[in-house]
Amino acid sequence: MASDTVKLAEYLFVRLVQLGVQSMFGVPGDYNLRLLDFVAPAGLHWVGNCNELNAAYAADGYARINGLSALITTFGVGELSASNGIAGAYAERSAVVHIVGTPPRPLQSSRALMHHTFNDGEYRRFAAMATHITAAQTNLTDAVTTPEKIDWILQQALIHHRPVYLEVPDDMPDVLVSSKNLKSPIQVPAVPSPLHEPKVIDRILERVYSAQRPVIFVDGESRALEIVDQVDVLIKATNWPTWTSVYGKGLVNEQHPNVYGLYAAGFGDKSAQEYFESADLILAFGPHYSDTNSYFSTTVPKAAAAITFRDSTVQIEDDIYRDTSPKNILSHILHTLDSTRLVQATGPPKQVITLDDIQNSQAVAQNNFYRLVNPLFNEGDVVLAETGTAAYGSRAFKLPPKARLFTAVTWLSIGYMLPATLGAALAKRELNKSTGAKNQTVLIIGDGSLQMTAQEISVMIKNKLDILIFIVNNEGYTIERVIHGRKQAYNDVPFWRHTQALSYFGADEKHVAENTFTARTCGELREVLKNERVRNGSGVRLVEVMMDREDVQGPLLYLLNKQIAEEQAQQGN
Amino acid sequence: MASDTVKLAEYLFVRLVQLGVQSMFGVPGDYNLRLLDFVAPAGLHWVGNCNELNAAYAADGYARINGLSALITTFGVGELSASNGIAGAYAERSAVVHIVGTPPRPLQSSRALMHHTFNDGEYRRFAAMATHITAAQTNLTDAVTTPEKIDWILQQALIHHRPVYLEVPDDMPDVLVSSKNLKSPIQVPAVPSPLHEPKVIDRILERVYSAQRPVIFVDGESRALEIVDQVDVLIKATNWPTWTSVYGKGLVNEQHPNVYGLYAAGFGDKSAQEYFESADLILAFGPHYSDTNSYFSTTVPKAAAAITFRDSTVQIEDDIYRDTSPKNILSHILHTLDSTRLVQATGPPKQVITLDDIQNSQAVAQNNFYRLVNPLFNEGDVVLAETGTAAYGSRAFKLPPKARLFTAVTWLSIGYMLPATLGAALAKRELNKSTGAKNQTVLIIGDGSLQMTAQEISVMIKNKLDILIFIVNNEGYTIERVIHGRKQAYNDVPFWRHTQALSYFGADEKHVAENTFTARTCGELREVLKNERVRNGSGVRLVEVMMDREDVQGPLLYLLNKQIAEEQAQQGN
Repeated sequence: MASDTVKLAEYLFVRLVQLGVQSMFGVPGDYNLRLLDFVAPAGLHWVGNCNELNAAYAADGYARINGLSALITTFGVGELSASNGIAGAYAERSAVVHIVGTPPRPLQSSRALMHHTFNDGEYRRFAAMATHITAAQTNLTDAVTTPEKIDWILQQALIHHRPVYLEVPDDMPDVLVSSKNLKSPIQVPAVPSPLHEPKVIDRILERVYSAQRPVIFVDGESRALEIVDQVDVLIKATNWPTWTSVYGKGLVNEQHPNVYGLYAAGFGDKSAQEYFESADLILAFGPHYSDTNSYFSTTVPKAAAAITFRDSTVQIEDDIYRDTSPKNILSHILHTLDSTRLVQATGPPKQVITLDDIQNSQAVAQNNFYRLVNPLFNEGDVVLAETGTAAYGSRAFKLPPKARLFTAVTWLSIGYMLPATLGAALAKRELNKSTGAKNQTVLIIGDGSLQMTAQEISVMIKNKLDILIFIVNNEGYTIERVIHGRKQAYNDVPFWRHTQALSYFGADEKHVAENTFTARTCGELREVLKNERVRNGSGVRLVEVMMDREDVQGPLLYLLNKQIAEEQAQQGN
Repeated sequence: MASDTVKLAEYLFVRLVQLGVQSMFGVPGDYNLRLLDFVAPAGLHWVGNCNELNAAYAADGYARINGLSALITTFGVGELSASNGIAGAYAERSAVVHIVGTPPRPLQSSRALMHHTFNDGEYRRFAAMATHITAAQTNLTDAVTTPEKIDWILQQALIHHRPVYLEVPDDMPDVLVSSKNLKSPIQVPAVPSPLHEPKVIDRILERVYSAQRPVIFVDGESRALEIVDQVDVLIKATNWPTWTSVYGKGLVNEQHPNVYGLYAAGFGDKSAQEYFESADLILAFGPHYSDTNSYFSTTVPKAAAAITFRDSTVQIEDDIYRDTSPKNILSHILHTLDSTRLVQATGPPKQVITLDDIQNSQAVAQNNFYRLVNPLFNEGDVVLAETGTAAYGSRAFKLPPKARLFTAVTWLSIGYMLPATLGAALAKRELNKSTGAKNQTVLIIGDGSLQMTAQEISVMIKNKLDILIFIVNNEGYTIERVIHGRKQAYNDVPFWRHTQALSYFGADEKHVAENTFTARTCGELREVLKNERVRNGSGVRLVEVMMDREDVQGPLLYLLNKQIAEEQAQQGN
């Protein structure tokens, strides 16, 4: 082998390692086995998921903590199973490199009738499908163009913070390619400053200095815009009242005195709503105004007050300035900001979370569970609350510094959160290696969602991850009951014995006995939460909490009551 | 409501019921709940699957027994999760009607930023993806065109025996549509006889009467061509030596004296190969010559000997006659066939399966397991052998009359077979209702495949299905080990305690204790197989059999030995 060449699979994996990827998700299949041979030698940890959808979800979770992740599936059967997970990564901006092992080139070019095809010689169907759910696609079909193709596609994942699709025919992993590029790390190109940039900065500063009732509003795409640290500086520098969206929660230090946490418009604190809606300046970062994330658009700032920082645009009132980098603009602003010219804004009074009203004899319920659990969380922990009642409940959490929250934003694919927990916990453990820190990863999930992807608990166990799982057992899809079909059987799920999960999924029997808990009353839950194994234990620990089939709160309670009123009106007819 | 109108959802479900659909697979989601309200009132049984991929697999299994099935998922998250199952139904010709509940029309037309989208106002992505994996697609967007659209798409599913994609916006189920068409059942149009049909029939009869060494070869697409009964008549009328492909196995009565079972060319009985390869006429029905189904093309009849009946074509030697219906042609042939003019063909000696060599002290292994299990099967049973070693093992089964076999054909998506078992068992139970017959549905599945979709066991239990599951525990993806990476960790799977499955997934504790079995030796397995609960029991019963990590036979043993030889050669270097 010439010294300036390297095998294709080595090239790809060296690039991933250079970009901070330490683990590889996926499932083996006939057309990716030769690629998998290179995973361990490259220093990558093979996770080995139970199925491809779970692997995609896990890779998404890993990328949201680590910035980038990689997933290997096989042609057709594997990649399609992963497609919903890839789509979710697109919708919520997670940079997953989806590597698909495809049939060897001679079989493809001869239109051979192979397994994992439709037996009709057509090999391009699944790649065509992938164009709809990935930010970029490429196919490594020859040695010459491979290094540039790999570099380009990884760069696309980093630029867009979205998944990309990379086909590797099964006869390619051993092909020699030039190693020249490997000496220079892959970089995201800087956005050139447009001619109108000075004007944009001037207009922003003018508004910032003249603001009398300012707000900072942080939404979740701030992570993809890579401005989270800058926003943190801005929050400290201005001391202005700051809220987040659902998606932005966990990107801002909620311990800052001027950070109020989640803004929920009419569904939250009235004094916060009054302040927010009468603001004369709302600096809105990384907006993502889906119905779920914006309380049905009610939290979207009015254009007259807003300056909005999106991907390569800044919007001031109704003027959209394209080709501007929010990162560059913020950098200028922070550099020139004169704190003495800023208004000393006083926000509304802060709400305090108390536990005093919760009696031990009370049943565990949505209106007490999240408050009781909240003190478990420590700096840097990752908290994941699955779509459904858990996602709504988690909105009330007060998070410690550097804690991250995963919750229902837009894709809302139930089943996502459990494998995402695996991915996030693994990424966190790897990132903690250098500092020696230890963090909990805590999942709160309903029984309906759990049943979608439960087998991935066995992969958590196999990978020796420290994960605490709360299963909210309310006997079905309570969130769907609230939306429609309150008493319909289609919103029920099969009965499972959740406390047997750790044993079935292979944990050590002693560990199972010591790390499985149930709680029906607040008193029982308080006891469980005092247990050192729950607070700071190792491995997978499981707490089943029982709640009523129709126990909901907040906007969900509104929907439930509306449904009950409609039922009563119909009965009256 | 005018008497000549009906609600859209009623129209759709009446049509499905008319076509023999009795159950509905799927998962509830925000955009399909209003549609689900009509399921039970239409007399359809709601299955309620754990996730959408499992639901799609189950619907596929149901359609292979029942002829047609229906699956409801929700927009984006649900339908993409199902996509691999839908693709498999396409590849192996199963008529699944995939109904997707989509966002209400006003949200779609206003490009609202809703959950289950990419938050960009684009609503057509997932429908565009579905065009690649379904035979037809339509979207019910208005009252006027709805009845014809529904009738058309159901007809497409029946014509092609492939999945179709039907979008129902969430504000449509209650819309009134004309009920006029409902009085006439949906019919598959007859194929018009082409001008060349008489010539085709003459050429076939000429070859049939002149044949000296004839073969009937039945492949799996015979089911989609709807010629299974005609082929049965032909087999009896000619008494000619008959073989099936892997895919065709179970479509032909293996108890007929002239039926030899599976043809495996060089991988099977040598005298069969000799006869088959020297045949001067091979009537090949429903061919599907993928690598898996044709032993790497070695079972494909030579063109000079073959007359091949495909979808709307008949091929005689190298001449392909298009626009001909195999069903019509066969009907003519059977009508005019003069048995006295047929050669009395004597095939090779038949192979006899014996159990005499199997000692009770032997470990359960691939080379004894299938022979020991085979006597369990009774007339009309459904046997499902998952992709992997189980699929290869099941090729040796001698099936009783009317028994059906599901095994690895072309799509080969591991995880498929367990939910397919649910679907097949349900269809069989429904079809048996009129006759009072009782059948077993027997699944044989490896531990790696099981982990993909295991949760669906809980849906089998909830639906009170009579299913016997054999779990082949060989600690991982043995079939992949054989193909590549014999000792690689990526072919391992997490450790599970399989005997706890029935309990975890909610079966009655007494049932669990009486219906969970394990076997390591052939003696133990023989004891288990004598148990009346295994032979004729009710509910889900589970037998875990332990096999060696590299225990394989047939073509797989060839691949394994090749790999070992390569390893030894490398070590020698």
